[in-house]
Amino acid sequence: MSDIKDASDPKLERFRELTKQIKQYEEILAAIYWDMRTGAPRKGIGLRSEAYGTLSAETFRLSTSAEMGELLDHLSQPEAIGALGAIDRKQVEETRKDYERNRKLPPELYREYVVLTSQAESAWEEAKRRDDYPGFEPYLEKIIDFNRKFIELWGVKGTPYDTLLDIYEPGMTTSELDRLFGELRARLVPLADAIASRGDKPDTSFLRGTFDIAAQKRFSKFILTRMGFDFEAGRLDESVHPFATGLNPGDVRITTRYLADDLTSALFGSIHEGGHALYEQNIAPELAGTLLCTGTSMGIHESQSRLWENMVGRSLSFWKQFYPELQKQFPGQLDNVGVEQFYRGINVVEPSLIRIEADELTYNLHIMIRYEIEKMIFNEGLSAKELPEVWNAKYKEALGIVPGSDAEGVLQDVHWSGGSFGYFPSYSLGNMYAAQIMNKAKTLRPDLEERIAAGELAPLKEWLTEGVYRHGKMKNPSEIIESITGESLKSAFLCDYLETKYREIYRLG
Amino acid sequence: MSDIKDASDPKLERFRELTKQIKQYEEILAAIYWDMRTGAPRKGIGLRSEAYGTLSAETFRLSTSAEMGELLDHLSQPEAIGALGAIDRKQVEETRKDYERNRKLPPELYREYVVLTSQAESAWEEAKRRDDYPGFEPYLEKIIDFNRKFIELWGVKGTPYDTLLDIYEPGMTTSELDRLFGELRARLVPLADAIASRGDKPDTSFLRGTFDIAAQKRFSKFILTRMGFDFEAGRLDESVHPFATGLNPGDVRITTRYLADDLTSALFGSIHEGGHALYEQNIAPELAGTLLCTGTSMGIHESQSRLWENMVGRSLSFWKQFYPELQKQFPGQLDNVGVEQFYRGINVVEPSLIRIEADELTYNLHIMIRYEIEKMIFNEGLSAKELPEVWNAKYKEALGIVPGSDAEGVLQDVHWSGGSFGYFPSYSLGNMYAAQIMNKAKTLRPDLEERIAAGELAPLKEWLTEGVYRHGKMKNPSEIIESITGESLKSAFLCDYLETKYREIYRLG
Repeated sequence: MSDIKDASDPKLERFRELTKQIKQYEEILAAIYWDMRTGAPRKGIGLRSEAYGTLSAETFRLSTSAEMGELLDHLSQPEAIGALGAIDRKQVEETRKDYERNRKLPPELYREYVVLTSQAESAWEEAKRRDDYPGFEPYLEKIIDFNRKFIELWGVKGTPYDTLLDIYEPGMTTSELDRLFGELRARLVPLADAIASRGDKPDTSFLRGTFDIAAQKRFSKFILTRMGFDFEAGRLDESVHPFATGLNPGDVRITTRYLADDLTSALFGSIHEGGHALYEQNIAPELAGTLLCTGTSMGIHESQSRLWENMVGRSLSFWKQFYPELQKQFPGQLDNVGVEQFYRGINVVEPSLIRIEADELTYNLHIMIRYEIEKMIFNEGLSAKELPEVWNAKYKEALGIVPGSDAEGVLQDVHWSGGSFGYFPSYSLGNMYAAQIMNKAKTLRPDLEERIAAGELAPLKEWLTEGVYRHGKMKNPSEIIESITGESLKSAFLCDYLETKYREIYRLG
Repeated sequence: MSDIKDASDPKLERFRELTKQIKQYEEILAAIYWDMRTGAPRKGIGLRSEAYGTLSAETFRLSTSAEMGELLDHLSQPEAIGALGAIDRKQVEETRKDYERNRKLPPELYREYVVLTSQAESAWEEAKRRDDYPGFEPYLEKIIDFNRKFIELWGVKGTPYDTLLDIYEPGMTTSELDRLFGELRARLVPLADAIASRGDKPDTSFLRGTFDIAAQKRFSKFILTRMGFDFEAGRLDESVHPFATGLNPGDVRITTRYLADDLTSALFGSIHEGGHALYEQNIAPELAGTLLCTGTSMGIHESQSRLWENMVGRSLSFWKQFYPELQKQFPGQLDNVGVEQFYRGINVVEPSLIRIEADELTYNLHIMIRYEIEKMIFNEGLSAKELPEVWNAKYKEALGIVPGSDAEGVLQDVHWSGGSFGYFPSYSLGNMYAAQIMNKAKTLRPDLEERIAAGELAPLKEWLTEGVYRHGKMKNPSEIIESITGESLKSAFLCDYLETKYREIYRLG
């Protein structure tokens, strides 16, 4: 990535300038979004949202402008491509993709959609609070309609839903996901059944109680520091829905949510978002200010959050090192709980209604349900009105439980209110990528578990930086996974990992 | 201000849209500035500054665009003006003023200046820290040169320095300021001399010590709440240099700086910025989103911060109410200090080197020194190189003391590093406006002091809202002062106020 060439071509120079401006506006928008979610005074939010909308629309306008089209046309000519360095070439390619997609949307339609989704997020919050799906349904129906219209404008790839998948995971298709999810189901459902019939449920009583919030904060900060999160290039705050946002590689912000009666919620939330943050903080400096300075796909991004949260953060090796520190933070509360007992407790498997509280194993079943529903919406014309019924039936079928209310059913996730259809599969893709990457790490470094148990997390972080983080968007998801592991994405690594882990925890023999 | 007319004229509609966009960008820039000063991670500041510069330049471009020129030309025609409501008319007038001024600056020159001043602020911080004036001098010389060039481009009004004064206090001139400052000097210097020769210095020993920062924070918040600062429409944070910024009327942010060994620094800082904030929070809702939604001048703005800080916050009536609460916050530390003793302590008069730590009386001498130096720079060609010598000579002459270093002399203030020449007089103008306004308040409501002593600050805030705050930029400074007090700005009110206050405190008979 060192071949940054002189922009002797004035059109190349202008292209760099324009993409940099777009990136800078995105950085500013991310800062404003963070502010609105973490501490902006309530009464200023209305005007702030409007200002945010105006700058968003301007950013969209720049990225779809006639000037951008001309620059891309010029720089995509064979003789021009040949003269480009690797970064410019990739940036032209990626920008062109977004340009082609976005310029198919009439700006007025896009602006209407931005306004709709920004209203819909509040409507969803309200509907969830009041368990009032009918109050949210009209918004959702409109958002679905917009997306159907977008698919039409963008052009159907394979199936209509494929067009949406491609936004979050470039190149991903329903046929590929059907296969991957089918494989997962075939191995994970029997595993979950075996666990359920085993009956020997780990003790989790010690995870409930009253845990000093200040101590929780200290411990989250401590763990993040040990993971290699750079607090001079980021910060940790609180918000209702935890998130991570990379403003630039020197300013990556994560949030979590502390619950006094729950020891693990904020902690694993912090580690999860911390994984996203390690990615964003370690993108190569030469990509800063380009549109390539971001994660390559949501699947790869989730692979890093879930690798750190689960494969590191919920491993016995990790807690062998850090459990005494946790005990120290809550004097008297965990004295009679051994590390093995703690490890079993944080890995209990149980069918549950809420995705973000699900264990590592059943989590994927939650994702499959959403994936199937989204497919039905866009490939089979399922309407917003029918969603609660379909949702509840699928939970009954896959997990054997039915939500007592829409608030803990179809209304639980923020994604659809923002129009993020096609995003959910990223979580399971992330789990699969993570397992495949972690498997490789352990092959290359057989003492990895021991080093983690010794508190040495830096070697893992550095290896992931080398293989994933520093590349930003210079490599596609498939290039990332193939260059690290030598093969394309496989479901088997996740299945193997989960089987090994849970057979041991549940003594399934 | 209720006559908002329909924008049946498409050019009026477009003008509203464009000015709203500029205002929205200014709101976003203010949020980013606040973030950079309060908690943005160190390593992200470089790229953030660049992004900030890009959006600033775009905002400047919008406000000087050919389109803006055409809209203003159209809306300034007699028949168009007649059709405008009061808000539109005033906004056309004010926007035209900025347009005329800004379009005289070549955009490239402006951009260079933005970059220079943003670098200069860091250079100044470093130079101040290291007491290295020569390290800052080249920046300052360039900034002065830019401003000389700007004055030339803008056109000289009266004297060159008048052109700069007009930016911060529309209509203000050196001849007017010479007169006002001359009057102040004639009465305040003898007063300061009388105090110095009195020798009976109030005890201030109890203001030094170790004061719990958490308790200081609680007390600042308590006082702000009682002043009527709306924490649902604002927040209080910490920064190295305290400031107030109104993002929109529903989001006004102030900062202060807590020192463990100084009880009053953060407290009066909070009240000062709180005064600015009351102004911004109480601008009429119908001005939101227009360029009139801001204070009318820096002088009027400072009148509000200094009115609340000094005429309310350093009054005996105020402390009769709030002193017991302060004592409670610092148990054991102020038990033996009576309220009268405390009041005398926080009002000690002493020639000092640092403006922001100066008492109410000598504060104005600090301002006069800066005013005279700025006049010399722009009207007599004084160079950056000569500044330390002139500075020290003026302090010797006016206050009888000489800085031991440039750090506590010519380098003490941030203003010049940002190019804010012509700003300093605002502080003394603020003091004069404040005294004249407060005098009127007491005439209209003879029991004002008693009500303050009873902790009732709302009536004062509401009266100021009616007379000052709600108008935003709909009225000019002279219209504000005349409509409230029935006369133009006079120095006598400030002199009377200070004489009365200090004769009593120092028992000058």
